[in-house]
Amino acid sequence: MLEFLELLPPGQALSLFNSHLPILQPKAEWVDTLQALGRVTSNPVLSPEPLPAFGRSTVDGYAVRASDTYGASESLPAYLVLVGEVPMGGRPTFVLTVGQCALIHTGGMLPEGSDAVVMMENTQLSRPGEIEILRAIAKAENILKPGEDVAQGQEVIPAGVRLRPAEIGGLYALGLTQIAVNPMPLIGIISSGDEVVSPSFIPSPGQVRDINSYSLSALVQHVGGAPHRYGIVPDRPEALREILSKALDQCDAVVITAGSSASVRDLTADVIQSMGAPGVLVHGVNVRPGKPTILGVCNGKGIVGLPGNPVSALVIAGLFVTPLVERLMGLPANRVRKSVLARFTINIPSQAGREDWVPVRLLPSEQGYLADPVFYKSNLIFSLARADGLAYIPAAITGIEVGELVEVVFL
Amino acid sequence: MLEFLELLPPGQALSLFNSHLPILQPKAEWVDTLQALGRVTSNPVLSPEPLPAFGRSTVDGYAVRASDTYGASESLPAYLVLVGEVPMGGRPTFVLTVGQCALIHTGGMLPEGSDAVVMMENTQLSRPGEIEILRAIAKAENILKPGEDVAQGQEVIPAGVRLRPAEIGGLYALGLTQIAVNPMPLIGIISSGDEVVSPSFIPSPGQVRDINSYSLSALVQHVGGAPHRYGIVPDRPEALREILSKALDQCDAVVITAGSSASVRDLTADVIQSMGAPGVLVHGVNVRPGKPTILGVCNGKGIVGLPGNPVSALVIAGLFVTPLVERLMGLPANRVRKSVLARFTINIPSQAGREDWVPVRLLPSEQGYLADPVFYKSNLIFSLARADGLAYIPAAITGIEVGELVEVVFL
Repeated sequence: MLEFLELLPPGQALSLFNSHLPILQPKAEWVDTLQALGRVTSNPVLSPEPLPAFGRSTVDGYAVRASDTYGASESLPAYLVLVGEVPMGGRPTFVLTVGQCALIHTGGMLPEGSDAVVMMENTQLSRPGEIEILRAIAKAENILKPGEDVAQGQEVIPAGVRLRPAEIGGLYALGLTQIAVNPMPLIGIISSGDEVVSPSFIPSPGQVRDINSYSLSALVQHVGGAPHRYGIVPDRPEALREILSKALDQCDAVVITAGSSASVRDLTADVIQSMGAPGVLVHGVNVRPGKPTILGVCNGKGIVGLPGNPVSALVIAGLFVTPLVERLMGLPANRVRKSVLARFTINIPSQAGREDWVPVRLLPSEQGYLADPVFYKSNLIFSLARADGLAYIPAAITGIEVGELVEVVFL
Repeated sequence: MLEFLELLPPGQALSLFNSHLPILQPKAEWVDTLQALGRVTSNPVLSPEPLPAFGRSTVDGYAVRASDTYGASESLPAYLVLVGEVPMGGRPTFVLTVGQCALIHTGGMLPEGSDAVVMMENTQLSRPGEIEILRAIAKAENILKPGEDVAQGQEVIPAGVRLRPAEIGGLYALGLTQIAVNPMPLIGIISSGDEVVSPSFIPSPGQVRDINSYSLSALVQHVGGAPHRYGIVPDRPEALREILSKALDQCDAVVITAGSSASVRDLTADVIQSMGAPGVLVHGVNVRPGKPTILGVCNGKGIVGLPGNPVSALVIAGLFVTPLVERLMGLPANRVRKSVLARFTINIPSQAGREDWVPVRLLPSEQGYLADPVFYKSNLIFSLARADGLAYIPAAITGIEVGELVEVVFL
């Protein structure tokens, strides 16, 4: 199978790939809420109770009936009878009636009969048992009413949300110490190549160590999936077919790093094509690095065939494997891409119609970050290690000039 | 102890805090390289061998002596004798002499005597055993020389680098299946407040569930530290002193979320002050939210006293706990902050001299992202859960107008 004649741009290739992947059928897995950091909610979370559960003060001061303060000012204070202090963590043992107030601390429970809190700095002790209120306040000032954060039954976290520290805190606030999340997708990783050996071996002349199985495992893990490595397969169709078939059975998706020679890439595409419908959807993408990328779907499971070159493999994995893992986790598409804008330090040409991803270092400057390209020959993994991110040069652009702003996506 | 009269801006408060923290003495911990994702190198990594270890082709084509192609063109090809094919993963069994070439695949080992590779598309089979070279090429074209990525003994990763997939791949390329990283810093987390109960309890009237222990544990974990929770301490100095002293013994740093009332904050500061020199360095920061922040160093260990309000606690933790954990991991200061620029959707005032962090949702638009503030009253944890990030309003600015660009830091 030759590369398709018309190379799709990465965005279109991804859309085509996605359009053949089935809609995720989430299966909830219950985990301890603190262990759920970074996981994705499988169901909307509804609040089992109102939050706060009771009226609370948001300041240090005196709980009052707001109407008792109307007209009060520094020159004409209102005088209220101090009936007690609200204990932290307890229900006040008294009820406020007209002309009364109670000392209350931030977070304290409003006594029955009160409807606002005057801040300490707007009060003054006139004589024992009597407080001067120096400012009129409105009903509900400086308090949180029951249910003001969340009403009982309200959806607090939709399905498909990756849990951050804020959500983890919110779930504990509601007593939800366990949470239903989507299972971590299992991603099979196959390395192929007659010249590739395990990193624990000393390579003989002509052999190289497997890099891609590990850099891709790390990437899958970083995104939130569970990588499963199937080792190194020689460049024989039957060997690849056997391992790919097993990986497709056991995993939610499979990533293959094919060798870099044209014949091996074709072998990989042929084997993917033989695994089920619709088979190979994309063979060759209009991007640099990473043109020899293969995308396929077989019986509902996505397969990404990456270039063997470790730099291209990692760049292309960012474009296709990351979105695939996120989709399998249950995250929505088109989320905010974490990137910075930076000014290019040199002129760089780019072929019209081809999207380029240029490894850059980010250097701080007075005008914000500078993006300084890291030059590399094919295959130099440490050139990527020296980069902070990848500068995105859209397909329509024929080059970037010194000082031009580019988007740099973090590696 | 009252709050200090002059409130420092967050940046200065952090500098003061850092200036009293000892320089990290890294203790290497050896871990499997794949497990080291996100960990920080404790030593510079030197390459035990050159990479690549042998001359390799970067294309599919014919290995040649470049001088044999000089003057060759489509109209006047050079004719070379085909002496064999380089096997993938093996050393070629032949040596090239003048006038000879050998078939080679991408990644194949250059045969002795060759010094360049002609790409397949610049050649043509003239007759069995003879190849026409249609283009002159220079020495070293389309090859990687031994050591071109990395020389033996070269520093490939400095100390203090957080390992990403690219570095993980690079380490395996060198056969480094174990790597020395700094230990994960252990961060003690103490929640205080007479009104605070464990999330597994049903709170009585006046009680609230502990949120901060969990949202902060999640944050510490997310940054790369190991949180250790010391539970909930009542608002009594001797109780806090006992737990804090234990936490300082056992951990590399301690975070306390003090209650929100002024008296409890003062109690916390007093207890920190009693734990060792220099004690409390900052009490109150010119920032919103989170003014009642306490920073202290006791006998070389950092203590951060956060406001009890869960929203303020999380915002302030991003400003002080994240850098503290990163420092204890061995990361350099002033690294690239992952953020986006976005246009404000409303006018918002900000007090001169005070730094503001406004929770915002990011909405895509044709002019890039819009930052839409999430309004909230103090204490509403789910308002933070609804935000994508925090818009940074520098101290010098007295307000943001509709359409103005702000930096939004991810939550």
